[in-house]
Amino acid sequence: MILTVTLNAALDVTYHVPALRHGGTHRVSTVDERAGGKGVNVARILHTLGEPVVATGFVGGGTGASIRALLGDLRHSFVDIAGISRRTTVIADGTEATGFWEPGPLVSTAEWETFVAHYDALLRVSRVAVLSGSLPPGVPVDGYATLVGLARSAGVPTVLDTSGEPLRLGVAAGPDVVKPNAHELAMATGMPVGALPDAEELALAEAVAASDALRTGAVGSGALASRAPRAGAPGSGAPGSGADAGVAVVASLGRHGLVASTVDGHWHALPADALTGNPTGAGDAAVAALARGIAYRLPWQQRLADAVGLSGAAVVSPVAGNVTREDYQRMRRSATVREL
Amino acid sequence: MILTVTLNAALDVTYHVPALRHGGTHRVSTVDERAGGKGVNVARILHTLGEPVVATGFVGGGTGASIRALLGDLRHSFVDIAGISRRTTVIADGTEATGFWEPGPLVSTAEWETFVAHYDALLRVSRVAVLSGSLPPGVPVDGYATLVGLARSAGVPTVLDTSGEPLRLGVAAGPDVVKPNAHELAMATGMPVGALPDAEELALAEAVAASDALRTGAVGSGALASRAPRAGAPGSGAPGSGADAGVAVVASLGRHGLVASTVDGHWHALPADALTGNPTGAGDAAVAALARGIAYRLPWQQRLADAVGLSGAAVVSPVAGNVTREDYQRMRRSATVREL
Repeated sequence: MILTVTLNAALDVTYHVPALRHGGTHRVSTVDERAGGKGVNVARILHTLGEPVVATGFVGGGTGASIRALLGDLRHSFVDIAGISRRTTVIADGTEATGFWEPGPLVSTAEWETFVAHYDALLRVSRVAVLSGSLPPGVPVDGYATLVGLARSAGVPTVLDTSGEPLRLGVAAGPDVVKPNAHELAMATGMPVGALPDAEELALAEAVAASDALRTGAVGSGALASRAPRAGAPGSGAPGSGADAGVAVVASLGRHGLVASTVDGHWHALPADALTGNPTGAGDAAVAALARGIAYRLPWQQRLADAVGLSGAAVVSPVAGNVTREDYQRMRRSATVREL
Repeated sequence: MILTVTLNAALDVTYHVPALRHGGTHRVSTVDERAGGKGVNVARILHTLGEPVVATGFVGGGTGASIRALLGDLRHSFVDIAGISRRTTVIADGTEATGFWEPGPLVSTAEWETFVAHYDALLRVSRVAVLSGSLPPGVPVDGYATLVGLARSAGVPTVLDTSGEPLRLGVAAGPDVVKPNAHELAMATGMPVGALPDAEELALAEAVAASDALRTGAVGSGALASRAPRAGAPGSGAPGSGADAGVAVVASLGRHGLVASTVDGHWHALPADALTGNPTGAGDAAVAALARGIAYRLPWQQRLADAVGLSGAAVVSPVAGNVTREDYQRMRRSATVREL
């Protein structure tokens, strides 16, 4: 099965209002709640596709109880904490979605250690581990590096989708795939990405250059200089894993699609048509496709077509982050993937 | 003791953000939570003043558990429901407070009947009952009329602070004091109130005319036409209660202070200085003062000076709806109350 890790799981709350007025008081007509956090979203999409998946991470308090209840028949094995899981609140009016992200509960050192042991046990029955989203307060900033290292020791390939210092430190530990968006890629490398968003060729060239820099560790500042030696990794037979394959960077560029930078080559993947809809969750859908691609040892062309198809299905879904198999299959078939 | 009723209790959540941007994503730096709903706010203020008080109403679900926990040492006796208590969410940036009010849980007929019996029992040990705020879905629109009628039967005077049809039907049942704000008064009577907010004399004249109409039932549309006969009320000795005293209307007019319309006369009450601060909770503070004024059979002049003092203390408090005894005493002493 595929294991998804959501250290900062959330209760995603959406308030529907006719129009957001700054300084106004709004009676909310409809309140939607669902279990969220990027790893939970990845797990839900894989579950929709019939893929065996287990969601893990931390939950706590009343919001944590709501998260567990809202997972429904998705298999999960979360670690309880004394703190209260965060909410995200999105105000949806006719025109815009305005989001508010709570920082998340404080995780104690003992709770983190409990989780690390729990995760290590789950790795024994996992084909791929997906590490997604922000770190809650109290989790060490190199927490993802620790989890990537444990997965490497267990011979389990990893997909890392985070930002900032946790991304930079996590990349140094040698995950198999990282999936930054343009902003995260720019922040992690200090290089321009999407500087002129209307210029597709420039956007691709920038994304390739920054992805190569992130992949090879050739970035300016300190974090990647401390890149861990990869000699300690076991020579496991896990597909796409281990020192030989190296880190692949798949950057999501919004309407410019995906750019992949790997030791085997570079690709650009696009949907057949420009999509209109809700981009929330499109990145998580791409991560779900990449994780499945590793699990089934698919070639990069196919992984990227899958990622475009699943992302596109998420964008056109009326419910953020949901997908249908029909949308996915249709958009996967019509996706274009060209080698750069 | 004073009994406060909050049928739609809330978990009040405040998100502090640097600046609210429509369509933006905001990382929330600080999250404040407290137990809310207008009746809970009234109870908290009375408790701060050392007044014996019990808060009742409905709570349910994880938010309900949080509400109970956040009440601290405030005495309460809520009825549990299967639904989940609502949240209110306020986005506070440097300049404005932008509020989102969830509608509240669905209350079943059986739960409403359980509450009515519970409330009736609590009335036996109450000097005044305060009925505040909106009705959650499922509670009959004449729910406050029912609660006012039971209090009258028990010889317990009532203060009603609500809006719309529940206010119109509640007034018809004969509470002792109703406290609409300018907007609620205009809505309940169909008369202009605060039409030219800069013109104080006009604002007062409008408020007096509309308050008199609400008090005497001389309003245009249907709700008050069904005004219940007051003959059924027991001739109890409760202060300010019973058919003789009639309904008193105390309208809160923001910076124009309070206007009282009673069978004994009309008054206008103002703080000594124009106040700057957070008006949230000022109305609840006024209700707390009016309830205490009934409990101690204070003359109207003194009730209104108390209401101005407590409202003012709430406005200048850095925490919405909190008051200090010092602010209250100072502003009460400097308030002006003149007969109209």
